[in-house]
Amino acid sequence: MDSISLLFNPGSVAVIGASGDPSKTAGRPIAFLRKHGFKGRLYPVNPRYEDIAGTTCYPSIADLPEVPDTAIILLGPDRANQAVAELAARGTRAAIVLAGGYSEAGESGVVRQQALQDARGSMRILGPNTIGLINLTEGITLSASGALDQDSLQAGNIAVISQSGGILGSILSRGAAAGIGFSKLVATSNEVDLDVADFVEHLVDDEATQVIALYLEGLRDTDKFSRAALKARAAGKPIVVFKVGRSEAGARSAASHTGALAGADALYDVYFRQLGIIRAQSFADLLDLPFALASRRKMAGKRVAILTSTGGAGTLIADALGTNGFDTPAPGEFTAARLRDLDIGDQAVLDRNPIDLTLAGLQPQIMQQAMRILLESDDYDAVVSVVGSSGVARPTLMADAIRESQRESAKPVLAYVSPHAPEALLRINSNGGVAFTAPESCASALLALQAACDGAGQPQERPAVAQSPISSDDIRALPNGTLNELQSKALYARFGVPVTRELAVDNAQQAVAAARDFGGRVVLKVLANEITHKTEVGGVALGLTEHTIAGAVDQMRLTVSARAGIVPDRFLVQEMVDGGHELILGFHRDPQLGPAILLGMGGVAAELIRDTSMRLLPINRSQATEMLQELKTFALLDGYRGAPKADIDAVVDCIVSFAEMAAVLGPKLQEAEINPLRVFEAGKGVRAIDGLTILD
Amino acid sequence: MDSISLLFNPGSVAVIGASGDPSKTAGRPIAFLRKHGFKGRLYPVNPRYEDIAGTTCYPSIADLPEVPDTAIILLGPDRANQAVAELAARGTRAAIVLAGGYSEAGESGVVRQQALQDARGSMRILGPNTIGLINLTEGITLSASGALDQDSLQAGNIAVISQSGGILGSILSRGAAAGIGFSKLVATSNEVDLDVADFVEHLVDDEATQVIALYLEGLRDTDKFSRAALKARAAGKPIVVFKVGRSEAGARSAASHTGALAGADALYDVYFRQLGIIRAQSFADLLDLPFALASRRKMAGKRVAILTSTGGAGTLIADALGTNGFDTPAPGEFTAARLRDLDIGDQAVLDRNPIDLTLAGLQPQIMQQAMRILLESDDYDAVVSVVGSSGVARPTLMADAIRESQRESAKPVLAYVSPHAPEALLRINSNGGVAFTAPESCASALLALQAACDGAGQPQERPAVAQSPISSDDIRALPNGTLNELQSKALYARFGVPVTRELAVDNAQQAVAAARDFGGRVVLKVLANEITHKTEVGGVALGLTEHTIAGAVDQMRLTVSARAGIVPDRFLVQEMVDGGHELILGFHRDPQLGPAILLGMGGVAAELIRDTSMRLLPINRSQATEMLQELKTFALLDGYRGAPKADIDAVVDCIVSFAEMAAVLGPKLQEAEINPLRVFEAGKGVRAIDGLTILD
Repeated sequence: MDSISLLFNPGSVAVIGASGDPSKTAGRPIAFLRKHGFKGRLYPVNPRYEDIAGTTCYPSIADLPEVPDTAIILLGPDRANQAVAELAARGTRAAIVLAGGYSEAGESGVVRQQALQDARGSMRILGPNTIGLINLTEGITLSASGALDQDSLQAGNIAVISQSGGILGSILSRGAAAGIGFSKLVATSNEVDLDVADFVEHLVDDEATQVIALYLEGLRDTDKFSRAALKARAAGKPIVVFKVGRSEAGARSAASHTGALAGADALYDVYFRQLGIIRAQSFADLLDLPFALASRRKMAGKRVAILTSTGGAGTLIADALGTNGFDTPAPGEFTAARLRDLDIGDQAVLDRNPIDLTLAGLQPQIMQQAMRILLESDDYDAVVSVVGSSGVARPTLMADAIRESQRESAKPVLAYVSPHAPEALLRINSNGGVAFTAPESCASALLALQAACDGAGQPQERPAVAQSPISSDDIRALPNGTLNELQSKALYARFGVPVTRELAVDNAQQAVAAARDFGGRVVLKVLANEITHKTEVGGVALGLTEHTIAGAVDQMRLTVSARAGIVPDRFLVQEMVDGGHELILGFHRDPQLGPAILLGMGGVAAELIRDTSMRLLPINRSQATEMLQELKTFALLDGYRGAPKADIDAVVDCIVSFAEMAAVLGPKLQEAEINPLRVFEAGKGVRAIDGLTILD
Repeated sequence: MDSISLLFNPGSVAVIGASGDPSKTAGRPIAFLRKHGFKGRLYPVNPRYEDIAGTTCYPSIADLPEVPDTAIILLGPDRANQAVAELAARGTRAAIVLAGGYSEAGESGVVRQQALQDARGSMRILGPNTIGLINLTEGITLSASGALDQDSLQAGNIAVISQSGGILGSILSRGAAAGIGFSKLVATSNEVDLDVADFVEHLVDDEATQVIALYLEGLRDTDKFSRAALKARAAGKPIVVFKVGRSEAGARSAASHTGALAGADALYDVYFRQLGIIRAQSFADLLDLPFALASRRKMAGKRVAILTSTGGAGTLIADALGTNGFDTPAPGEFTAARLRDLDIGDQAVLDRNPIDLTLAGLQPQIMQQAMRILLESDDYDAVVSVVGSSGVARPTLMADAIRESQRESAKPVLAYVSPHAPEALLRINSNGGVAFTAPESCASALLALQAACDGAGQPQERPAVAQSPISSDDIRALPNGTLNELQSKALYARFGVPVTRELAVDNAQQAVAAARDFGGRVVLKVLANEITHKTEVGGVALGLTEHTIAGAVDQMRLTVSARAGIVPDRFLVQEMVDGGHELILGFHRDPQLGPAILLGMGGVAAELIRDTSMRLLPINRSQATEMLQELKTFALLDGYRGAPKADIDAVVDCIVSFAEMAAVLGPKLQEAEINPLRVFEAGKGVRAIDGLTILD
């Protein structure tokens, strides 16, 4: 058995620093292990006790009668480190360190955490500063969480992995109150060793787990996490993440708490999306979305029936669904006729949606029949039912209707509990239903089911490995630092990016020759690696010809000298490219998430609204196409108001070439930018007008 | 006493169709009146009973020993109408009709509701299809809401007015569970007579009411509602509204439910903002924001201290606050020193924010002292405290700390309850604290407190009444229907809008003369009221001179004849205006909300992202300036990247002139649009290039 399996399912557990007083934190783990039914061998260790509630207590780790499968360490930080060393020495495979005072607690804590790292040897550690881990499938709790005081913790198929113990307790207790069950719960906290990715990787293989809920403050190893997430995706087990750090304040707070660096949040959105991970937008969604997904029902379209016996709440649901892009069409003729056959009096409004049964909805049979009719109807992909005030007095009414009606259908059935009716909520959720107390949760849950159904669970086609157009020797031969425009575009061109025709010249005479050679109008630019903003120092002259370029060279030499303090000795003569649309295509390395491509619409208005899209590499053609289509002003390229369509295919080619270049150059490439990338009419391609590259 | 006062505070109540069985809907009102302590005279009316639980029951309305102050009618719809007629005949001032089957139930219901309207005479009616009304200040319940089954309904200072009875019950029961008290609650539902505006107007004067929460599906009389809202604003009593109809589906559902028409939702945002009404973004906010506002605490800035004993939940709060624009700075030196003086061990993290007391936070004195230090600190404008898992076992810990510490401070103190700890929530909220179970609610509540503090409660300066530049005779003389460009701009110019110089001509000869007169380049346009899209029929020619215009007239006559099927006999010669930025300035009448101005940025990118702002009239200069500044691409006009600033003042003048025109013309003006309005550099003004007007 691997170490994480031993943590979740130990045959024997040593409880180091166990207290005989179950009201104390150090007394809780043994009490909880017993309460929730642990059947293995239990070894309290504490020199102050002979036994704890009838179980022999050992004075030291050395005195234990066997090497325990795992240990939970309840000592303060420095003694905890000592215990870790002793357990490792005896050959224990994994241990949990609850003590705080490590990296979350300033400089001395960081030193202490390093000492813990040194002490563990090859033993795996969960923590420190963790509340522990809980296996509700088998009833094994290695935790001091007060949430375990509850008698009836329901086993279920949702695993929770949290970088905060407090959040774990919050989810566990909220779930218990709502009748939502869990398979495994673990707080990784300071992650001196085992981290969220290790547990995702492990729990994908856990039969009892169907959905994984993650509370994240930061990722230590994104590659490892990506691999684990892709494994979950391949296994069809959705991951829902709530990640803080959406604001600078949250990021700062998270960083101080776990020591993890927070990456740019918008790029995390991209990262999660590319991995098929659903990002919870509110904290409540971190419980609600996994619960909906755990039902494993399929949301095949966007048409939702709302079944209610109270008007206002049905309207609330319709409104929440509508703002999230769902349709709530009226029943078709056949469905409406079946509903009318229920013969429930003239007050019921059956030909509209919400379908309002009014008082007749309080009769269990009518409610069940109506729900079955809607589930069987081809008019709808899902049903949301409303629990009105009757849910307070008759908590099982809706639970029964849902249980009875949904057996023969794979469509999602959600319930919205309108009044405060905790018992109705509990009954529905513990009987195979999915009920929420916020109308917004119904909408976000259906969105999550739709995402899971839309093939977000399928790994995307990966790009073919490119035949590198540049040898590794060539790569090594590339200079370090900033490449100028000419060097940058020459490099991009080797990977298939179309660039402007251009020639470097030293003087006016060469410039005239070049202009004559190109023909038509040309552009003159100063060429110096030191100058990155050419226009500002008078280093760009447009619309020149072979007749006017000589004077322009002389003038530019004077102006640039005066403004930039450098006498330029090289210039670039470039064909002048008119017309088309301008894009920006950039590459950078996020310190957390790695190499990323940014595509932006050019033009001042688009810049002001930051009309950009991002992807982490690698990307394939269809992702590159999505990037382009995601731009808010994409319509400008797509034949807006009768204008000719732009060459979309050429843009996509260019993005893919740019991405291939980044893949081939690897860490050598730090930054690259084509600005502008000019896009012409369909069939006429694109052209990189200017470029800037930073190599390392 | 006015009729609404009688409804809330009747000396005598007739209960028409009362049942002796308190488990039935018709039995509830009397049971609830007794249970919640009604002390007035109670007259059940039902020929089938002699008495109901000891109170004499009368066979008919005619038999009542006095004219009741008010009546609650529990009969079915047709008998209810009859009872209304009888009560009105006896002189009863106000009655409540619970029956459904009126306008919410199709055509026959609409007829029935008209019959009810006819029957009431001058008697005021609440309903039909209502759950009734509840006065918790005095313990008077004229309602059949199942939510009144609860024993301990807490009186408070929040009034609830709902267009749905079910939503009223939902809010009442959720409030009771969370320890949130109410003053008055009323469901206006079908609003055959009394509507939300009547109750807002009344409850502003209610001493027990400090905040009003509204659930809205639509407004029947926006003028009346506006007056009531402005009265609330002047009285410093905030209104929080949750309005459905944000999506088409929601609007449709709302319309079918109450028969009220839903206006364009984005304009409702503008409407509420202009009235200083806070719009709840989630349904939970409809309870949470009023509760925070009811504390009457002042949010003077945006710096928030987070006090916690559990790391993760503090981070959640920091993240939610940060994404809503709040700052969570670390304590300053003085505050940090005071916190360190608490001497709570080295694990506590006191020099950061969230301020983490860790386990020391479980000691009541430490928690209270820390909270007092933060409330006294000049570093913070508010404190959010986190209730961790200790809140389950020790529900009063945080309630006591908040009660003890907040007395000497007017700053907001919110609590976030992290685990499921309903008792802790209840204790805090019933003891003068404000606790929420969603981190997002803490942020939205502080935003609401900030809005209330930012002078949103102050009526804005109203524009001076304009001296009309046009007499009422002139207005009557205006033609009906569509005005062409020349007529439109001539009209706008009378109100001070700068327009292009232009002259109508009949033939090429006149066109040449006009072009010579203007000098420089001119524009030729076809002039025909039938043609609204001139460019599409070849009716616009740019860049002409006195030498080329004659040919252009002939050409245009041919092209327009061919494309539009009309032989044009009039043309417009116009000075050609180059440069500057383009805006769109429009006026329309929303069927619900009345006259509105729309300002939009021109250019395709801005059009694609619908870069517009709206205001309902009247508006003053500062509101016109805000409209302009609200545009996402406003920076384009404001000296973006070293470009010269545009003439902002002239744009504002133009908006105000346009609005004055609308005010003077009144309902005569249906639509008006300047497109484009060209804006030049500062000092160089604006010019209306084209215009279209629809008069009635």
